[in-house]
Amino acid sequence: MSSGSDFVQHIASREEDFSRWYTDVILKTDLVDYSDVRGCMVIKPYGYGIWELIQKELDARFKATGHKNAYFPLFIPESLLKKEAEHIEGFAPEVAWVTRGGSEELTERLVVRPTSETIICSMYAKWIHSYRDLPVLINQWCNVVRWEKTTRPFLRTSEFLWQEGHTVHATEEEAQEETLKMLDVYVEFNKNVLAVPVIKGQKTEKEKFAGARATYTMEAMMQDGKALQMGTSHDLGQNFAKVFDIQFLDKDGQLKYGWQTSWGVSTRMIGGIIMVHGDERGLALPPKVAPTQVVVLPIAQHKPGVLEKARELTERLLKSGLRAEIDEREGQSAGWKFNEWEMRGVPIRVEIGPRDIEKGEVVAVRRDDLQKTVLPMEGVEKALTEMLELVHQGMYDKALAFRDSRIFTATDFDEFNKAVNARQGFAKAMWCGERECEDAIREKTGATARCIPFEQEKISDKCVCCGKKAKHMMYFGKSY
Amino acid sequence: MSSGSDFVQHIASREEDFSRWYTDVILKTDLVDYSDVRGCMVIKPYGYGIWELIQKELDARFKATGHKNAYFPLFIPESLLKKEAEHIEGFAPEVAWVTRGGSEELTERLVVRPTSETIICSMYAKWIHSYRDLPVLINQWCNVVRWEKTTRPFLRTSEFLWQEGHTVHATEEEAQEETLKMLDVYVEFNKNVLAVPVIKGQKTEKEKFAGARATYTMEAMMQDGKALQMGTSHDLGQNFAKVFDIQFLDKDGQLKYGWQTSWGVSTRMIGGIIMVHGDERGLALPPKVAPTQVVVLPIAQHKPGVLEKARELTERLLKSGLRAEIDEREGQSAGWKFNEWEMRGVPIRVEIGPRDIEKGEVVAVRRDDLQKTVLPMEGVEKALTEMLELVHQGMYDKALAFRDSRIFTATDFDEFNKAVNARQGFAKAMWCGERECEDAIREKTGATARCIPFEQEKISDKCVCCGKKAKHMMYFGKSY
Repeated sequence: MSSGSDFVQHIASREEDFSRWYTDVILKTDLVDYSDVRGCMVIKPYGYGIWELIQKELDARFKATGHKNAYFPLFIPESLLKKEAEHIEGFAPEVAWVTRGGSEELTERLVVRPTSETIICSMYAKWIHSYRDLPVLINQWCNVVRWEKTTRPFLRTSEFLWQEGHTVHATEEEAQEETLKMLDVYVEFNKNVLAVPVIKGQKTEKEKFAGARATYTMEAMMQDGKALQMGTSHDLGQNFAKVFDIQFLDKDGQLKYGWQTSWGVSTRMIGGIIMVHGDERGLALPPKVAPTQVVVLPIAQHKPGVLEKARELTERLLKSGLRAEIDEREGQSAGWKFNEWEMRGVPIRVEIGPRDIEKGEVVAVRRDDLQKTVLPMEGVEKALTEMLELVHQGMYDKALAFRDSRIFTATDFDEFNKAVNARQGFAKAMWCGERECEDAIREKTGATARCIPFEQEKISDKCVCCGKKAKHMMYFGKSY
Repeated sequence: MSSGSDFVQHIASREEDFSRWYTDVILKTDLVDYSDVRGCMVIKPYGYGIWELIQKELDARFKATGHKNAYFPLFIPESLLKKEAEHIEGFAPEVAWVTRGGSEELTERLVVRPTSETIICSMYAKWIHSYRDLPVLINQWCNVVRWEKTTRPFLRTSEFLWQEGHTVHATEEEAQEETLKMLDVYVEFNKNVLAVPVIKGQKTEKEKFAGARATYTMEAMMQDGKALQMGTSHDLGQNFAKVFDIQFLDKDGQLKYGWQTSWGVSTRMIGGIIMVHGDERGLALPPKVAPTQVVVLPIAQHKPGVLEKARELTERLLKSGLRAEIDEREGQSAGWKFNEWEMRGVPIRVEIGPRDIEKGEVVAVRRDDLQKTVLPMEGVEKALTEMLELVHQGMYDKALAFRDSRIFTATDFDEFNKAVNARQGFAKAMWCGERECEDAIREKTGATARCIPFEQEKISDKCVCCGKKAKHMMYFGKSY
């Protein structure tokens, strides 16, 4: 889509202005564009290609764990949304209202779904009668709308794409197991597909999903030290089941309410990929979600035989299942092309010129560490496939090392403040469990409670804020 | 999802009440359900499974023809929609209006996209500058909303799922070629994937897409003799380009407007599948889009070894790439299960009981003609894969023969009226090309102009309505 102007050099410095760097990267690599609609982004083919690969990988995992996809209406009648008190309170300030259809004023206003618990529960109440109907394991891929005041592409937009799983179980234990199982699916996906290390844990009462009994989260650290919530899984208990009357006749002849879960990840994860892996050169895409994994660059392509060989190589790579592409544009220097493909984050670039052809070799350059390797043409598919694994591992290791270097244990308020502000990282600290301290910390430092991690350590006995008896170890951080 | 009540016998007669038969089939086979939202359907997992397979097959075809997916906003500002006069006139009566966001009244109303030409053109105007940026070949998978007065699941609902391709080209010829190429992709897909024969042709001025220069369509005949438009491809000419200022600097140094196309198919096609292939027993799914292609039914499953062998067989089929499923539910007779799986339209049922196991055989029963075949267990995967091809072909041939038996050549008005009413079919007739006759025919017979087919025959010199000089041969029919 880009006609190739000299944009390569115009990415802001990541160190000096991370926020500007982010905007430069997403616009200049053709991931997204701003639209004429307030707070809504256009996901361009290169960005959408990443989302398609994310969908494919996640969908296979959902199906392997017994879930099926379905589709529920975009619109939710106001009365349905209002049924669960906490839920409407949480979502009312940020919904878009449909008030007219064609030329008529609607008798009941509709909201554009901000999430689908209520409309889905209204259907589950119709579908579920007996323990034989359980578990219900349904997922939906769709768009949702939340009327946000300040927006950033991928991170917070009025409309975004996501998946939302909604399940119903016969027992509390089974629902809890599902909640954590799907969180684990997300964690594994982040590690093995996005090369993003995450911390899993529980959200506080304040930060949990409106209407849930408990919300579990996975938090990643961006390169400015801020936290990004990469996905959540909710234990809904029987809250919605009671309000929507989802009852089933159990084996023991008793009428019981179902136990529910819901869980979701969104296009926001693409923002996470960018901010975890990107660098001064631009984007760096994890190989498993890179629309182009290997770009083939013919060197001195005007010389006889070069273009033919480069095309032949590209065909071979495509045939072996790699997502490969050749750049045979004329009128741009090799150096310019190197920069551009590095900016676009393609995991491996392969250079093939007259001397390489003579020697039966190619030069492969990894995007993550810029290492050059000479590969024999024979078996190059296998070598590149293995190199992609190394790139993935390299990116994960680098992200993990960075994150760990930015997690600071804080036993008093000064240390805490330094951790999240001066040192730009997460503070690992003890917390009394009271909302008051959570609020005070936010007010004084700008950091929010990211999660009560599953892996607890006892740093001290006292709450870092009030000094009273500590209940949990918590990760705090500034966030998006 | 179904807990297996005795619904099998309650499908209305297809001959006596086709409309009721349709509703019974879609509800009782768990394809869809009605929701609490006016005119919006819930697509249940079985129905959505069909849509996923449709998407997969079509998406591969779009990509093979050079298209990439992207995503544009759900909302369109009123001012954008109004830019193209014919377009807003066509869509205004059927759009849903968002007038509030959060607690604020919007300064400009938004429509929920009924189709995305306007929002996409506003972006293309930003992206396209030079002939080097062309062609733009983008497709979008999404939901759209049209505020319909009377709705039927799949056929006409306020919200539906679809894909919409939007392309821009440097020349008129290239755009026309694209319009017809994508129509051909749809036709081929209908034949080879859905087993649905379609007639391709051009829509009249009256029936064309609001804002298009020409609309091409493919029309299928349902078993009540009515027509269903299975998809359309539009030659937009430069109408939208001029309004949205999509200009490019051509090779010759001239600034020119782009030539555009758009094309789409929707979940409506699932309604077509049902009404083309279904019968008194219920649904009959074309193998390529059947979520379950082969159901394995253990006979006398309480007898030692039966269940094990049936499971083993299912595993083998799955491993070979067939979408297979075993029904090992207890408490239902084999006969009941036969009926249920026939109702759900699974292309092949495989029965395996003690005697079959002894002989190293299974019994395969085709859904399309109910023929039983004994297959040796050895090589059963291959035999069933081949049988699925035969089922597909059998379904296509049957649909084609039915359609052709219901197309009647009409040289006068009486014949015409008999064709579309008493004989419930399409009338093939000459038409003068005047809107007046098109309207008169509709008023007097209830039939609409379906298309001016590409394959023209000269039936007579005179318009079937006014008797004046005929311009085209046309297919007329009642429609959904």
